Amino acid sequence: MSNRRQSRQQAQQYLDSLKGHPFPNSNKLYLQGSSSDIRVGMREVHLTPSIVGGDKENPITRDNESIPVYDTSGPYSDPEIELDVRKGLAPLRKQWIEQRQDTEMLEVASSDFTQQRLADQGFDHLRFEHLPKPRRAKAGSNVSQLHYARKGIITPEMEYVAIRENLGRERIRSEMLTAAHPGQSFGANLPERITPEFVRSEVAAGRAIIPSNINHPEAEPMIIGRNFLVKVNANIGNSSVTSSIEEEVEKLVWSCRWGADTVMDLSTGRHIHETREWIIRNSPVPIGTVPIYQALEKVNGIAEDLSWPVFRDTLIEQAEQGVDYFTIHAGVLLRFVPMTAKRMTGIVSRGGSIMAKWCLSHHQENFLYTHFDEICQICAQYDVALSLGDGMRPGAVADANDQAQFAELAVLGELTKTAWKHDVQTIIEGPGHVPMQLVKVNMEKQLEECFEAPFYTLGPQVTDIAPGYDHFTSGIGAAMIGWYGCAMLCYVTPKEHLGLPEKEDVKQGLIAYKIAAHAADIAKGHPGAQIRDNALSLARFEFRWEDQFNLALDPDTARAYHDASLPQESAKVA
Amino acid sequence: MSNRRQSRQQAQQYLDSLKGHPFPNSNKLYLQGSSSDIRVGMREVHLTPSIVGGDKENPITRDNESIPVYDTSGPYSDPEIELDVRKGLAPLRKQWIEQRQDTEMLEVASSDFTQQRLADQGFDHLRFEHLPKPRRAKAGSNVSQLHYARKGIITPEMEYVAIRENLGRERIRSEMLTAAHPGQSFGANLPERITPEFVRSEVAAGRAIIPSNINHPEAEPMIIGRNFLVKVNANIGNSSVTSSIEEEVEKLVWSCRWGADTVMDLSTGRHIHETREWIIRNSPVPIGTVPIYQALEKVNGIAEDLSWPVFRDTLIEQAEQGVDYFTIHAGVLLRFVPMTAKRMTGIVSRGGSIMAKWCLSHHQENFLYTHFDEICQICAQYDVALSLGDGMRPGAVADANDQAQFAELAVLGELTKTAWKHDVQTIIEGPGHVPMQLVKVNMEKQLEECFEAPFYTLGPQVTDIAPGYDHFTSGIGAAMIGWYGCAMLCYVTPKEHLGLPEKEDVKQGLIAYKIAAHAADIAKGHPGAQIRDNALSLARFEFRWEDQFNLALDPDTARAYHDASLPQESAKVA
Repeated sequence: MSNRRQSRQQAQQYLDSLKGHPFPNSNKLYLQGSSSDIRVGMREVHLTPSIVGGDKENPITRDNESIPVYDTSGPYSDPEIELDVRKGLAPLRKQWIEQRQDTEMLEVASSDFTQQRLADQGFDHLRFEHLPKPRRAKAGSNVSQLHYARKGIITPEMEYVAIRENLGRERIRSEMLTAAHPGQSFGANLPERITPEFVRSEVAAGRAIIPSNINHPEAEPMIIGRNFLVKVNANIGNSSVTSSIEEEVEKLVWSCRWGADTVMDLSTGRHIHETREWIIRNSPVPIGTVPIYQALEKVNGIAEDLSWPVFRDTLIEQAEQGVDYFTIHAGVLLRFVPMTAKRMTGIVSRGGSIMAKWCLSHHQENFLYTHFDEICQICAQYDVALSLGDGMRPGAVADANDQAQFAELAVLGELTKTAWKHDVQTIIEGPGHVPMQLVKVNMEKQLEECFEAPFYTLGPQVTDIAPGYDHFTSGIGAAMIGWYGCAMLCYVTPKEHLGLPEKEDVKQGLIAYKIAAHAADIAKGHPGAQIRDNALSLARFEFRWEDQFNLALDPDTARAYHDASLPQESAKVA
Repeated sequence: MSNRRQSRQQAQQYLDSLKGHPFPNSNKLYLQGSSSDIRVGMREVHLTPSIVGGDKENPITRDNESIPVYDTSGPYSDPEIELDVRKGLAPLRKQWIEQRQDTEMLEVASSDFTQQRLADQGFDHLRFEHLPKPRRAKAGSNVSQLHYARKGIITPEMEYVAIRENLGRERIRSEMLTAAHPGQSFGANLPERITPEFVRSEVAAGRAIIPSNINHPEAEPMIIGRNFLVKVNANIGNSSVTSSIEEEVEKLVWSCRWGADTVMDLSTGRHIHETREWIIRNSPVPIGTVPIYQALEKVNGIAEDLSWPVFRDTLIEQAEQGVDYFTIHAGVLLRFVPMTAKRMTGIVSRGGSIMAKWCLSHHQENFLYTHFDEICQICAQYDVALSLGDGMRPGAVADANDQAQFAELAVLGELTKTAWKHDVQTIIEGPGHVPMQLVKVNMEKQLEECFEAPFYTLGPQVTDIAPGYDHFTSGIGAAMIGWYGCAMLCYVTPKEHLGLPEKEDVKQGLIAYKIAAHAADIAKGHPGAQIRDNALSLARFEFRWEDQFNLALDPDTARAYHDASLPQESAKVA
């Protein structure tokens, strides 16, 4: 059997036998909101008692409080929930959406491509069986969280997010556990307790987004903004030569387990449409895409043949599937392309280079820029958030912070204003490759040029000399920019620059980025962030090994390393 | 066969078949100094030509300059040199030491313990066969590089270091390669060209050290100081239950290959003396130790039974073997111990807790503090540098920057002055576990309290929640403190807090720390640091895959990841 076939079969087996798989010595904790259908899933780590006296035969012990931790794994870590990837997850937000009475179900999909695809029996074997009907805003309605927020409405999504961001820390009684150093927040506003009204006001101000396409009711609400916990995105997606739908769904489930707050499906292969359907229906986290990738497939990979109608249909196709945010490279303007000629590595963003090619061949302005209002109108009908892509991001530390990069950033600021005019939630993408001494100015310029819209960066990598370890070269930059105010960090895996990530690479990338994001939360002074560190340190001091493993970001690896090695005594040397 | 026995045999085989093993497509380059015996070994990476025109059949190419890079691997990467670990490396510095005429060969070792050990035939099978006679300063002489520097003497060691620190960058002609962003140096003084006189003046000022015990003439001179390249230390060493001499020598060779600038032998097992002999005789990099570990073995692990005579004999034993620097926990004062009572994790430094136990049980001041002048006198006779240990370093982010830690730091400053009075080269050890927002103040306080003596830190770890990944949690802090001015970073391996590192852990720790150190060099603006990044980025842009692998910190992994995966096209997305 070929390797390809084997890994596809393994993924199939994994999905067939999928069960809610709790983390070690942890249970799923649901924090109740103001109504019975607001139940915020967290993970609660149970600890062993401390020995405080007595002797070996009759130890006197003291119980330790269990520690609630943020949990992105959704139903996949709840053994009580029956899972079936062929049916998808339960639509948690369905009622909330319906109760707003501003949407309607469509009998047929609005996208021509979707209609053709559904009519083609050749794809039947790949299709997700239980396809829901698409939903759209009623004529004249705007269904974005930003729109509600600006009208003063606190949605259930906002309340959910407020509970989630508080980390259940009001449950912790021990002063040892809640002790924390003052943070250095660089202007971030981190209230002691996050209220639904605070969430609303941040969304209304454009400083935060809650990606929540009305066609992705399975997703658990989460928020991206400087005044909240730093988030992490994982990229998955197949290419024309590698991996199947099964493998991508497996990577999705795996990403959520290891802490992905959102997942981007960057598939470029043959069955993009069907792959995405499976991913969205099974995802408890928001899904992002780069629609130009699929549009390019539709014109057989020839950038010059791209057009607004093809792209527009792709947006609608994906919006009605439930994509929560679109990366749009609308800031790659014709006049910026020559600025990259003297660069070390030219244009490295795939979306950026596609649009640059289009602009040059037609000698016309980027159609994403000229049609940006229409893009916003589509997004507002489904509440798709915009992630304004940085097509001019540097691909080498040498190219960091150059004219092309910062010229584009200014345009992204202008586009932010336009998106906000349409009440479309917006975040801004950032570099890339930036040496440490230039990281801070990226954050400062973004805040200024884009009016505090949330920043979402890839890394940045702080050196180029370690291919094979770019999760780490970029994790350093990610931790720093997260501290300075970046709202979401797009992970990089060890395979970056070398190949497409497999399952283990996804995990390594995620752990590196969870570390970066958490280090940033602590440094900013996010209330409650240090509780988990404190709990783990106390466990370490008292040689409660099991508790150390179970509180670790990766309990399996911590346990395996310990078991492979050492007597307790030497391990005390911290 | 048991696992233990098997890994010992594997190590033995590795050593038996040891040959100078060049890095891929690289050769050993020796830069000549002012005399024929100053030959500074570097690695020169040869690149493939760029295709600049023509067609597939008849490409027009342009040659690319080869890139010299700093090389810690010594003779182990030179296929021209015959290697035999039973004989040890050639004594590169022997003539320089002899020509100074301030030392004498001893007929017998000065340490009682060494004499007993040599007389005991039970250890014959473990012993290094070609033991050199120990050398010591003539009565009244001081043989430290600091002493020479203050007298205005430029030693061959200083000239060697100057050539080494310039990275051979004067050979590079391409402006694309030498382009670099301005650094942010936080007061570091990084001249465009490092001269032997600059090295001398930095050593004379105490701002840098060249660890160079006269009994370790095999070591290639290197410098530790804020105004030079940031260095990395690797800890190796067996414990009472794990690993053999063979395995430790293998780890030494392996550490040097992957970039260890110095290696600390932290052995605590049965054959510390013999293990160290093998390590030093085969090490091209300076070797550090924590002598209290061996002293404790000599009193059967009972801290209370430690005494100045036992410790003093251990210092002399190790100094005559050739240890280049001693970690001495002389700042752990009796009055500081109670300050740790309210800590999350108490005292986590092994040396610190040994001395705290001694102080408390005798209710006396730390004998390392009270005998500090005598320690310095011993060091000056062999040029052993002092690394003033931070016995009060925090073991949890919660304990960072507390009273105990900073009280000790002030004492380390006082001790620095004493050491300098004896012309003993001195560095200062630092934390530990420190959240990002508190890292900078550590560096600033150290510079101030210790009069710019070089700082040498373990990490710091910026979060405690990722056991199994502490090479990374600490690598973030290491990159930052290196940027702020830390001179040497003590690596942490993935096994930190969980077990003792094996060969692969050593490599993972080193690569993480080489990344941190290099990122710091770039951020500080070290001239020439960015050349390797630029060369690799250009190779990436031109799809010169072989060059990317060969310029990478870990060519083997970069190549393996690429081969396991992907067509060239997709890999362009950087």
